[in-house]
Amino acid sequence: MTAPRVPDAVDAGHTGGPASDGDAALRLVNPTLLLIDLQKAVDDPSWGARNNLAAERTITRLLQAWRARDLPRIHVRHDSPEPASTYRPGQVGHEFKAEAAPVPGEVVLAKRTNSAFIGTDLEARLLAAGARTLVVAGVSTSNSVEATVRMAGNLGFEVFLVADACFTFARRDWSGRLRTADEVHDMSLANLDGEYCTVVDAEAVLAALGGVVRPAQ
Amino acid sequence: MTAPRVPDAVDAGHTGGPASDGDAALRLVNPTLLLIDLQKAVDDPSWGARNNLAAERTITRLLQAWRARDLPRIHVRHDSPEPASTYRPGQVGHEFKAEAAPVPGEVVLAKRTNSAFIGTDLEARLLAAGARTLVVAGVSTSNSVEATVRMAGNLGFEVFLVADACFTFARRDWSGRLRTADEVHDMSLANLDGEYCTVVDAEAVLAALGGVVRPAQ
Repeated sequence: MTAPRVPDAVDAGHTGGPASDGDAALRLVNPTLLLIDLQKAVDDPSWGARNNLAAERTITRLLQAWRARDLPRIHVRHDSPEPASTYRPGQVGHEFKAEAAPVPGEVVLAKRTNSAFIGTDLEARLLAAGARTLVVAGVSTSNSVEATVRMAGNLGFEVFLVADACFTFARRDWSGRLRTADEVHDMSLANLDGEYCTVVDAEAVLAALGGVVRPAQ
Repeated sequence: MTAPRVPDAVDAGHTGGPASDGDAALRLVNPTLLLIDLQKAVDDPSWGARNNLAAERTITRLLQAWRARDLPRIHVRHDSPEPASTYRPGQVGHEFKAEAAPVPGEVVLAKRTNSAFIGTDLEARLLAAGARTLVVAGVSTSNSVEATVRMAGNLGFEVFLVADACFTFARRDWSGRLRTADEVHDMSLANLDGEYCTVVDAEAVLAALGGVVRPAQ
């Protein structure tokens, strides 16, 4: 457990949210775009109500910006070992969503659990490439994205989590309170920001990449 | 991202909370008690309002039960590298809380980040001992406890997280909503249970250890 910032987390001066992040320009050094579990599985109605319906369009913009500059990009694909999972290989849910589908030459990294660092060569691959800065987006904010971001930060990577390029789902908390997807998402971001990563929005990331985003050739 | 259980997380039949866990007896095979960051640092008022004020007494009961049976126990100590942290070594906050202080012969494992598995030999130590079952308690539920439990589950350990032997602090979420410590705690437990661990209460753990708890000799 790391100390709270000064002012601390419940100080009246801390309002949460992206406003303060938008003030300072980001400095991204050879950032790797790490996309998590953006597969058709997540469109299955069993997942319930989601938030950030525009996340996929935002992710496409990020991907285009990375492609236009030939910056490194890694598509993490969930190969669920659970028979009942919508992410199980061999069915349509396992396929990448169209908005985030890899193109030839892009790295696809398969995982079987939540964190993209466990059971994979992700850490070794990043270290070998000298990649220390990660820009993370995907699904779900509170599950595989969060597990991956917590590990990435603890492993020493500089992590930027793109709030509007992630989404999650409504659920009940441990006391049975039904939380909307926005509430679940917002609790995760607050727990992650400043401790494991810096939470940003896509506009700040795109601005940091140097202005107008050109589509891929 | 792993598939939701059937019924899924927002199904009306899922109420959250410990009631359903109390129904089935736990089966604990040579469980290791893993206590996280239970140091005086956390009593500093800068952390804000906490929940589960009885957690330390509950942790003492767990420790006594483990000692009485000479089951394995690991005290994870946070050695914060941050100059302003209440957990920085060399000050009173770095000391273990009296209710959770190790006795000679118990393992003390130092860490410098949130997850007890990063920068430590915890995984290797557990594997060498053939320890596959972890019972986790400590502070805070939503930070070092959660980071450690997520990794433990993903690494393949069977993890039981003791809800009433953990605590956390009030904070604002990313949209600025002030959440009580109970709300923060309950959101974390819901995100963890069934995905990275099984959330239980101390009574169920103590019952699984075999009845009356004897104090250490």
